[in-house]
Amino acid sequence: MQLFIGNQNYSSWSLRAWLIFSQYQLDVEIVKLGLGTKQFYNTLAPISPTAKVPTLLDSGVTVWDSLAILEYINEQYLDGKAWPSDTQQRAKARAITAEMHSGFFDLRSELPMNIRARRKIQLSSGALKDIARIDAIWSEQASKYPNEWLFGEWSIVDAMYAPVALRFQTYGIELSAAASAYQQKVLSSESLQQWLDEAALETSIVEEDEAGTEI
Amino acid sequence: MQLFIGNQNYSSWSLRAWLIFSQYQLDVEIVKLGLGTKQFYNTLAPISPTAKVPTLLDSGVTVWDSLAILEYINEQYLDGKAWPSDTQQRAKARAITAEMHSGFFDLRSELPMNIRARRKIQLSSGALKDIARIDAIWSEQASKYPNEWLFGEWSIVDAMYAPVALRFQTYGIELSAAASAYQQKVLSSESLQQWLDEAALETSIVEEDEAGTEI
Repeated sequence: MQLFIGNQNYSSWSLRAWLIFSQYQLDVEIVKLGLGTKQFYNTLAPISPTAKVPTLLDSGVTVWDSLAILEYINEQYLDGKAWPSDTQQRAKARAITAEMHSGFFDLRSELPMNIRARRKIQLSSGALKDIARIDAIWSEQASKYPNEWLFGEWSIVDAMYAPVALRFQTYGIELSAAASAYQQKVLSSESLQQWLDEAALETSIVEEDEAGTEI
Repeated sequence: MQLFIGNQNYSSWSLRAWLIFSQYQLDVEIVKLGLGTKQFYNTLAPISPTAKVPTLLDSGVTVWDSLAILEYINEQYLDGKAWPSDTQQRAKARAITAEMHSGFFDLRSELPMNIRARRKIQLSSGALKDIARIDAIWSEQASKYPNEWLFGEWSIVDAMYAPVALRFQTYGIELSAAASAYQQKVLSSESLQQWLDEAALETSIVEEDEAGTEI
């Protein structure tokens, strides 16, 4: 099984897919491709219709979207345990996951993931609304599962929101106490620490993800 | 079970969720709310954190995203049959579904769903690229399942792309023969015909979805 990812400093969608392999210690070869390089395109174009990361190759199966990869791994290797087992909670987790997958555009464009940077940024009202909604999700779940993952056990929804914990750190976004506690849980988790260690070795700069002013 | 939807002439995400109920003749009460009306907000705000359509209420479970609704109904009422049963095909169907759920922004913004209209529109290069990609998906699947749904039996991915068949009709987009045949299959299906009949009774205008010039 091969998972193609981009620069670990910048590629938030790669991180989302990568986390499920790390969290469950699944055997996978990680192939890192520099965003915007010829090697990136030349490697992905023959195997993926969109030539984007993350892409998963597993004995003849190609999966070219982060959420589709997470659902595939959950079904194929984890017997469904990467979603909450309770029907009601699973439906809610899927809805929250879908919000991230299809939305939060202002947050995503104004606060690009850039792990090594610490920046100050002017936020639009749209980005502020996105941040408030994410704070509300994290706080509400923390009131139900204090000091745990969003739905108690780690699940796909935690993978979806992990890059946001990093964005909030890069741009110094202030959160409510409950949301901040969840953010710290994400940042200090073993899986994320491994990702951060690997990201710290990178030196390439992706100009379009260098938003804000240095602090 | 209640499914809250918007104006049938315009609300593409409502159509996606609605189709699975129609396709499998599931017992559901459809509650239609006029987009942008007070009633819309007053009805949805107390039950959904995003106050958008579609939203599903099912004995204590609220699901507020189209894909999450489709996955929920598939698991809860259809024993998984709304995805292809083959692992490889299901992974591919999920990836294609995810492309629609999280992308095709130029197509979605420049060619809003507007069933009753017939318009001419100037397309950006981004919208042309989106159209080409959708044509490629439909053609590739049609070569594998001629005259059938995208993966043979009807599946969630057909729900996700159904509004595109309507957009292509509204704006007179020319497709390859294979893609056009799939479009016609969608447009002439019993479920879609029922939606069109209901949409045809509507008279409200949503200005922001009135793109293009009359032909």
